[in-house]
Amino acid sequence: MSEPLFDRVALIGIGLIGSSIALNVKAHGLARHVAITTRRAETLATAERLGLGDSYHLEVTDAVREADLVILCVPVGICGAITREIAPYLKAGAIISDVGSVKGAVIEQMRPHLPETVAFVPAHPLAGTEQSGPQAGFVALFQKRWCILTPLEETDPPAVERLKVFWEACGSAVEIMTAEHHDLVLAIVSHVPHLIAYNIVGTAADLETVTQSEVVKFSASGFRDFTRIAASDPTMWRDVFLTNRDAVLEMLARFSEDLASLQRAIRWGDGDTLFDLFTRTRAIRRNVIEAGQDTAKPNFGREAGNGSSDESSA
Amino acid sequence: MSEPLFDRVALIGIGLIGSSIALNVKAHGLARHVAITTRRAETLATAERLGLGDSYHLEVTDAVREADLVILCVPVGICGAITREIAPYLKAGAIISDVGSVKGAVIEQMRPHLPETVAFVPAHPLAGTEQSGPQAGFVALFQKRWCILTPLEETDPPAVERLKVFWEACGSAVEIMTAEHHDLVLAIVSHVPHLIAYNIVGTAADLETVTQSEVVKFSASGFRDFTRIAASDPTMWRDVFLTNRDAVLEMLARFSEDLASLQRAIRWGDGDTLFDLFTRTRAIRRNVIEAGQDTAKPNFGREAGNGSSDESSA
Repeated sequence: MSEPLFDRVALIGIGLIGSSIALNVKAHGLARHVAITTRRAETLATAERLGLGDSYHLEVTDAVREADLVILCVPVGICGAITREIAPYLKAGAIISDVGSVKGAVIEQMRPHLPETVAFVPAHPLAGTEQSGPQAGFVALFQKRWCILTPLEETDPPAVERLKVFWEACGSAVEIMTAEHHDLVLAIVSHVPHLIAYNIVGTAADLETVTQSEVVKFSASGFRDFTRIAASDPTMWRDVFLTNRDAVLEMLARFSEDLASLQRAIRWGDGDTLFDLFTRTRAIRRNVIEAGQDTAKPNFGREAGNGSSDESSA
Repeated sequence: MSEPLFDRVALIGIGLIGSSIALNVKAHGLARHVAITTRRAETLATAERLGLGDSYHLEVTDAVREADLVILCVPVGICGAITREIAPYLKAGAIISDVGSVKGAVIEQMRPHLPETVAFVPAHPLAGTEQSGPQAGFVALFQKRWCILTPLEETDPPAVERLKVFWEACGSAVEIMTAEHHDLVLAIVSHVPHLIAYNIVGTAADLETVTQSEVVKFSASGFRDFTRIAASDPTMWRDVFLTNRDAVLEMLARFSEDLASLQRAIRWGDGDTLFDLFTRTRAIRRNVIEAGQDTAKPNFGREAGNGSSDESSA
């Protein structure tokens, strides 16, 4: 049996991502010891019951002692406070990483607290589901997904390489880019799509002319797809929008501009503008499927009954 | 063997919905004869090769002769022209129906041309996928889906009942409402969701700071869900927006208002507003699943690799 990549991995936070990392460390023998810490005793007990780690700690400082890889798996908004707390207890030579969906703000919050003796490698596995909590994790979560690393100027290259090997062992393909570019890319492929999904679900719930039970009843006509995304973790997503503000507002402004132009086309009966856009977007779907980023099966391959129908005739 | 519901069913248009109806008529023995007509010779040849009907006609007037059920399965925009053409050839006592996603405009277009000797029962099966054409149809498409009938004041009740039995035989649950209410409901559960999906995909394709290939590459972070909806048939959807204009513009105005308020919350760092909405929308997802309108499996139960990941950590 080959040497594990790390002696001791500390996971701070044990939600969907933290628990899926824990399962991967076990499944692929990536560490001798997995230390798990989370603030809520109940969540920690669930993690222990599920056997996700080797030791369980309510005190975050206990978990990170002697760890040679520490990963913060918590909402972006509390990364700074946690880093300040653990900084004095970090082992020299340790790698500190995270899984946050925003990288600029995470770096801004964490960097000032970290001693020079550790290597900070911000990371973002582009993986998840609409479910949350330690029981939501599964080993295949990162399989064939991207993990983006955004190392700093001062980050030690061998530490970046080691974390890359770690994520590849979890099944991911690793991409390296600047934090600034990451935040722009994610704003358009993830943050704004989530915002408009949350928004349409809210709008639909607040109508007087159509009841909420009608909205639910007839949701398979397109709406249900948005409810899935709008079921994502509220704390995590609040923090994403608060911390990637500038990129989100910029992309949102463009979205609204484009939507106003579609609205105008509808009002004035300009069918060509609509038809041209709808033809162009269809081609992009083909690219997504060809790039292996989604299934080609109709309705995402949902099972019949739940899945064999939806909106194209709706 | 029980008597078929109809002697001769004529299907005008043989795309996803028309072909799925044809397969259901065969599978459940709902008619002695299925006559298929479509304008493009190539599409008609495909339908014949697939064995979808009993006779195939390039002339729509040939198909409807002697039919006791005629269903228009064409984009909403051409229902009027077709009705004018077939009206003189309709058999007395025949039921005329359609499958259009907008009911007010369909009625406005078709009603003036129809003789008093036929029963007009507008219908809308809330079923479909993002795929189009006669080869996209399948027998389970209508299984456990809603079919909404919007009979007119003058529509003969037994004709409504007969069409209800027809759709129930195809596996659907039938709901009856006014055309006006239908158009409001569909605007929010289907039309506006489609419009914003088309729009975000268009916005993402037009950026300078993020390339289109990056958008495709990292699309599993949420964006890909929108590309599926935005791959729906362009002609059909152009017609939906042009013909359900007022309801779409009304719902769109509310969507934009709500979005502006979220935008303001992001700009001013009002996390509570975001958190409250995101918690409320999560509850609506639970209602959708409890109502049997979507699968509870993470990521719609997409297969791993294509499906085991997406946006909740993105």
